[in-house]
Amino acid sequence: MTEPILRELRAQLPDDAILTDPAGTEAYRYDKAGFCTAGTPLAVVRPSTGEQVQHVLRVATRHRVPVVPQGARSGLSGAANAVESGLVLSLSRMNRVLEIDPVDQVAVVEPGVINADLSRAVAGHGLSYPPDPSSWELSTIGGNLATNAGGLCCVKYGVTADFVRALEVVMADGQVLHTGRRAAKGVAGYDLTRLLVGSEGTLGVITKAVLGLRPAPETDLTAAAVFSAAEPALHAVNRIVADRVQPSMLEFLDGTTMRAIQDYRDMGLPAEAEAMVLVQSDRGVRAADDVAAIGRICAEEGAVQVADAADAAESAMLWQARRMVNPAIERLGATLVDDVSVPRSRLAELLDGVARIAGKHDVLVSCPGHVGDGNMHPTVIFDRGDDAAAVRAERAFDAIMQLGLELGGTITGEHGVGLLKRRWLEHELGPLSTSLQHSIKAAFDPLGILNPGKVLD
Amino acid sequence: MTEPILRELRAQLPDDAILTDPAGTEAYRYDKAGFCTAGTPLAVVRPSTGEQVQHVLRVATRHRVPVVPQGARSGLSGAANAVESGLVLSLSRMNRVLEIDPVDQVAVVEPGVINADLSRAVAGHGLSYPPDPSSWELSTIGGNLATNAGGLCCVKYGVTADFVRALEVVMADGQVLHTGRRAAKGVAGYDLTRLLVGSEGTLGVITKAVLGLRPAPETDLTAAAVFSAAEPALHAVNRIVADRVQPSMLEFLDGTTMRAIQDYRDMGLPAEAEAMVLVQSDRGVRAADDVAAIGRICAEEGAVQVADAADAAESAMLWQARRMVNPAIERLGATLVDDVSVPRSRLAELLDGVARIAGKHDVLVSCPGHVGDGNMHPTVIFDRGDDAAAVRAERAFDAIMQLGLELGGTITGEHGVGLLKRRWLEHELGPLSTSLQHSIKAAFDPLGILNPGKVLD
Ligand SMILES: Cc1cc2nc3c(=O)[nH]c(=O)nc-3n(C[C@H](O)[C@H](O)[C@H](O)COP(=O)(O)OP(=O)(O)OC[C@H]3O[C@@H](n4cnc5c(N)ncnc54)[C@H](O)[C@@H]3O)c2cc1C
Ligand SMILES: Cc1cc2nc3c(=O)[nH]c(=O)nc-3n(C[C@H](O)[C@H](O)[C@H](O)COP(=O)(O)OP(=O)(O)OC[C@H]3O[C@@H](n4cnc5c(N)ncnc54)[C@H](O)[C@@H]3O)c2cc1C
Repeated sequence: MTEPILRELRAQLPDDAILTDPAGTEAYRYDKAGFCTAGTPLAVVRPSTGEQVQHVLRVATRHRVPVVPQGARSGLSGAANAVESGLVLSLSRMNRVLEIDPVDQVAVVEPGVINADLSRAVAGHGLSYPPDPSSWELSTIGGNLATNAGGLCCVKYGVTADFVRALEVVMADGQVLHTGRRAAKGVAGYDLTRLLVGSEGTLGVITKAVLGLRPAPETDLTAAAVFSAAEPALHAVNRIVADRVQPSMLEFLDGTTMRAIQDYRDMGLPAEAEAMVLVQSDRGVRAADDVAAIGRICAEEGAVQVADAADAAESAMLWQARRMVNPAIERLGATLVDDVSVPRSRLAELLDGVARIAGKHDVLVSCPGHVGDGNMHPTVIFDRGDDAAAVRAERAFDAIMQLGLELGGTITGEHGVGLLKRRWLEHELGPLSTSLQHSIKAAFDPLGILNPGKVLD
Repeated sequence: MTEPILRELRAQLPDDAILTDPAGTEAYRYDKAGFCTAGTPLAVVRPSTGEQVQHVLRVATRHRVPVVPQGARSGLSGAANAVESGLVLSLSRMNRVLEIDPVDQVAVVEPGVINADLSRAVAGHGLSYPPDPSSWELSTIGGNLATNAGGLCCVKYGVTADFVRALEVVMADGQVLHTGRRAAKGVAGYDLTRLLVGSEGTLGVITKAVLGLRPAPETDLTAAAVFSAAEPALHAVNRIVADRVQPSMLEFLDGTTMRAIQDYRDMGLPAEAEAMVLVQSDRGVRAADDVAAIGRICAEEGAVQVADAADAAESAMLWQARRMVNPAIERLGATLVDDVSVPRSRLAELLDGVARIAGKHDVLVSCPGHVGDGNMHPTVIFDRGDDAAAVRAERAFDAIMQLGLELGGTITGEHGVGLLKRRWLEHELGPLSTSLQHSIKAAFDPLGILNPGKVLD
């Protein structure tokens, strides 16, 4: 059974594009999610062209073998994990920026391009590609598209989907689908581009994308404020959003996160603080006024410390704490990162509920997040190697998703469903929507070979 | 056959919700598109609640009777036209703004709300709902959603789809589907919200929508420039878009349109002018600098007249010409409005090609458009009642769509496919995408009773 597949794959792929040695394939089995299983793949295939991708899918279809598209495996939901005896289809070699057009303000890219590489490339033309997941130095555009990745600046500029004009997609049977168009607008037929964005590799393999760009942003400045309770910080956030400042970033750190950071490195964060709000304005000549106004709002809402940066260096300093969230929290133990997104008016209830859940399940939960669009990352922290704690952590993780739903939100604001939240999807969508999702899956992938077991059961 | 249906409909609908008298139903047969057929409906049904909509669809499913959802019939593609012996389902009575929430920045509305009514309602809360089709005083939010309507300010703020968070939809069989969420972000499952937006009433009946809002825009100012040729005007447009001004409107009038306006009312437009560019900046305190910069760019590109407004009154005056486009052109004859959208770099070729097509088919074609996103409305003008001219007009209309596709664009940027461009859809999408579209249609509406014959063949 195995050998014919490999032989057929090799017929149109260079030798070094196929890894079968467990020592080589092991690294491709898992993404960055905790608590997710992964199978042992038959092979990892690393095509360099769209034609090679087509070949892989034709062979896989012939043999009814699962195919898991894969970018940089920075995902946080297990969506890129290998499936038992399937093929991992790594797109990382297809990493060329094919075109940057300053008039049409588009970039044409292969899926394996690293987000930060694209950002740097377009900056050279006075342009920007706004979607900026914190994983931007790692993650690929293909992965960003397949998860509809968010990031820090989506509070002003939108998420990945908002910058996709057209896709080239290899379907499960090897056919090539073109969706969308290079033009800025278009409404001909159902929006298959948007259907594929966020589909987590279950509907097709993205082999090329036309992405919209914007003029490079103007200079930015940052304000930061520390509060002794979360509620006034959230009030300040709502006032800032209601104002016309239009922050280009609007982040929140809760007390647990702040203390983790302060333990990790002395940033002068007061031990009794319970909230920090970080706000950027990128409105050029208006940024100084903006951060002053933001500072005033925070002070009026009772902030115990307020800083508004006068220049880029001071702004960068204020963001240092934010950048330490991941290392500081990971030092405390194993983590399970929730990704609930709720209406902004329900954020106080979310934070209260998370604290209650942490108490009930006897785990530590930090709660940083993209507060401007209500997308928080409650992170359950527990002792590595303590099985009982792991069970409690998983219960807390689930309870937080349940809470997100009860508050009119979603189980996942930007990380996706993957394996980790698959059991929860129907909870959120209900049976009718779920059955429509299955029908769509069947229309795109009738044999069910594309990333099976992910997103949908 | 007829009577049982009507009896069943009446069982759960008030008498005045059902029109069957031809004198009453005639007005509901056609939208604003030319060259489209319409059937004679069995009845026009005007429900006031979602439950009534469900009832209508259950009855229609039982009897396999076509249902055409309908808003204000301002559509320009025949998508809302009645189908022979089917039901017209007018949503115009469901016209309540159910909620405006300034914290979450959302409005919850029924589908029959007129766009302008919503805009005025949210303005009272210091908010704005940006999508502004020129038909905003007529068209309904349901129609805007079902066509993914654009407008003047989408060059800066995006189209209708960009402001939809959640939908309540009655399916062909009467079940209620909920898509999306009130929260600003969410990636759980395939994006059914986006699939329904732009589906022209063929996948489900929208009965409620949660729409995202923004803070009310700041003050705006306008610059206008007249050119003696189109090409330098397009150069100016590209420079303005590449700049950081971020115009909130960026419109183009060609020479034919300008002369039609000048004939209609003396606006002082020079007879030999071949292009006019109208640009708005709504950046408040920066707007004056912006319009000055825009004026400078236009002057550098050779504009023969440049005006940058100093205040709101002057700005409004500059927009007068734009507002006269429709009446001025309609005075010249019958019209067929194209809606091609091409990459901005191809606009000069589009204008040249349109002139060539006008010559070849011996018709007059004006060419105004939302030039900032490459979405032009070449409008074929011909003598009412002249059958030969009508045939030539239709050929020119088709040739313009073909040209749009050749330039990497689309047959429809914002008006939709409906009946008018149905034959052209597969041309644009290709067979694979078309067959996926059919599968999606079948998943949502297995009996094919929802707006049959529209969009897809
Ligand atoms: C430190 C850190 C910070 C993060 N910050 C953010 C953040 O701010 N915002 C955010 O949204 N996410 C964030 N993430 C999550 C992750 O980086 C994103 O989900 C990212 O988009 C994944 O990209 P990838 O290339 O690593 O894809 P992978 O993890 O390899 O794959 C992700 C999914 O995409 C599919 N896929 C990959 N390539 C293709 C393709 N070409 N065609 C079809 N399907 C494909 C896979 O099958 C899988 O379903 C973060 C992760 C880490 C580790
Ligand atoms: C003078 C003028 C200017 C215009 N300017 C613009 C413009 O700038 N930009 C633009 O995009 N369009 C423009 N249009 C076209 C038209 O106004 C838009 O397409 C508008 O969105 C249609 O809304 P409506 O309520 O009139 O819908 P209708 O014309 O009644 O219906 C349009 C489509 O929506 C479907 N539909 C309506 N309500 C529902 C519902 N509740 N559920 C499901 N399906 C539904 C119908 O079946 C049909 O397919 C203009 C038209 C005119 C006459």
